[in-house]
Amino acid sequence: MRIATLVGSDGFAGDGRLVHVDDDWVTCRPAVARSLQDALDRGGLTPDPDGVEQLFDPARCTAPLPRAFGFLDGSAYLNHVELVRRARGIEMPDSFLTDPLMYQGCSMFEPPLAPICAAPEWGVDCEAEVAVITTFVPQGTPSEDAASHVAFVMLLNDVSLRHLIPDELAKGFGFVQSKPPSACSPVAVSPDALQGWDGRKLHGTLCIDINDTPLGRVQTGEDMVFDFGDLIAHAAKTRDLPAGTVIGSGTASNRSPDGGPGKTLARGGAGYGCLVEQRVVETLESGAPATPFLTPGDKVTIWMENKSGQSLFGRIAQEVRPARQVKASSRL
Amino acid sequence: MRIATLVGSDGFAGDGRLVHVDDDWVTCRPAVARSLQDALDRGGLTPDPDGVEQLFDPARCTAPLPRAFGFLDGSAYLNHVELVRRARGIEMPDSFLTDPLMYQGCSMFEPPLAPICAAPEWGVDCEAEVAVITTFVPQGTPSEDAASHVAFVMLLNDVSLRHLIPDELAKGFGFVQSKPPSACSPVAVSPDALQGWDGRKLHGTLCIDINDTPLGRVQTGEDMVFDFGDLIAHAAKTRDLPAGTVIGSGTASNRSPDGGPGKTLARGGAGYGCLVEQRVVETLESGAPATPFLTPGDKVTIWMENKSGQSLFGRIAQEVRPARQVKASSRL
Repeated sequence: MRIATLVGSDGFAGDGRLVHVDDDWVTCRPAVARSLQDALDRGGLTPDPDGVEQLFDPARCTAPLPRAFGFLDGSAYLNHVELVRRARGIEMPDSFLTDPLMYQGCSMFEPPLAPICAAPEWGVDCEAEVAVITTFVPQGTPSEDAASHVAFVMLLNDVSLRHLIPDELAKGFGFVQSKPPSACSPVAVSPDALQGWDGRKLHGTLCIDINDTPLGRVQTGEDMVFDFGDLIAHAAKTRDLPAGTVIGSGTASNRSPDGGPGKTLARGGAGYGCLVEQRVVETLESGAPATPFLTPGDKVTIWMENKSGQSLFGRIAQEVRPARQVKASSRL
Repeated sequence: MRIATLVGSDGFAGDGRLVHVDDDWVTCRPAVARSLQDALDRGGLTPDPDGVEQLFDPARCTAPLPRAFGFLDGSAYLNHVELVRRARGIEMPDSFLTDPLMYQGCSMFEPPLAPICAAPEWGVDCEAEVAVITTFVPQGTPSEDAASHVAFVMLLNDVSLRHLIPDELAKGFGFVQSKPPSACSPVAVSPDALQGWDGRKLHGTLCIDINDTPLGRVQTGEDMVFDFGDLIAHAAKTRDLPAGTVIGSGTASNRSPDGGPGKTLARGGAGYGCLVEQRVVETLESGAPATPFLTPGDKVTIWMENKSGQSLFGRIAQEVRPARQVKASSRL
């Protein structure tokens, strides 16, 4: 099953309108349930037999689940964690090999073509991830059962404001300002219809371009130390997870075949799912980063290909724009 | 306006049924909108003129907003922060006086009478807080305008698993397992109908009992270093906040008149909104904590009184029960 959510036609974005995308990606038709959250809550995921088929236009898509009741983002690719920590001059503790790193994120999701409204001084970066949308997960569900709660798989661009991160991490309470909403791929796919899904993780090539230049071609089935069963079980240890919880993999990141940090695409490596990894490798090699963070006008494109080069979820394509700022009315 | 949400009668809890609670707290009547989220999204907060009046029974209430699209919990009472950090042997940095501490929390909320399902070895504690439910807040809204986005005020018991916190904080990504869902007061009140609301914070006595013995009688209008305008603006710096975002004050906590840590009620102080503060003060005074954390069978009761001793939001009354654990099906 391949679903998408169209922006509401009644002027209220809200949870949008759930549609089924046909196999040829040319047409779609409404589901029985109005929204994906409705379908997860009460059923009605199937196409409405009376629904009118229409052309499928990814530009009309919002996120498959535009508003979720929870987003828990893991860091399952420890190569990313090691590199990012190295950038901050700290070692990764051994416990990270057995205890998944995870934070609670902003559970509003942006459309695939949404602008990233952020000030350049915030250090704007992308993070290409695989994410799943779960059914209801009871408290205490073990890892071996948890992946059976995966209802849909999609992609995320977990926008990260690198220059705001150090101060927030120093406060010890995780990310708030430094992780604004992530954008989603236009399409989410159920595990049974997803080529490369092995029951606990996804095998395929995650493609990341910056301004139409390739940054990464990452194998998501490799170097994922914690799979989605592990991540869901970690999130559900002390609480139920509501239907429609989004669990992210963290930035997909491949090591070099020799076990070292991944190489750039130009040097025959898999490249990177975010700019900060490339900057760390540049710093290790030549003492300073050469790749800048994103500034207004820059574009990030993220999509995933199977072995035949077919796109599995459609494209995230975002352009950076200046941050919005509301004038204080008392100063007007 | 005083609202509550009744558990759905159709067997699906979901977002429940929004009702207006009459001034005498004896009766209630359905709102035009089905749920509080519907009302915040599309209007319909007013009572349905055709709705049937019924007896108001707090035992039938779920949280005013049982599922939210965001929960950001501040630590506005720095006395609490100082004490908790002292328990961990660390000083509070000066930046905490100007930059609010805040984490992203679990945005599912429990009914006022829900059990707390948690293992005693997790170190189960309560945290009594004031929280607000916002309208839509645009990115970059300044503090001086932000409090005008408060739609409703309510109480939270932000359940905290103290023995899981040190390891999670050491990982640097904030709370996941150590902060399971908070429970809410049965009733939420709009600012215009709320005695003691000064436009940015709430003045009144927050009452916390453990097993029917008073633990705290905290003045929420005092020692709140960041008000709700500050907290909302902090949360909205880099993103829009959706209508229905919940912003918490953090544990309400009063200093002693001499500026030191608050005293117990028995010694004439305001007492505490959580057990860990009392344990820290006991440790400072006699070298070890005397007050245990909560174990199955223990009860936490939280309510708020105005100057006349009237309850503003009704009572949170929770009993601790053992944690749930799902058996792995592969082991059956």
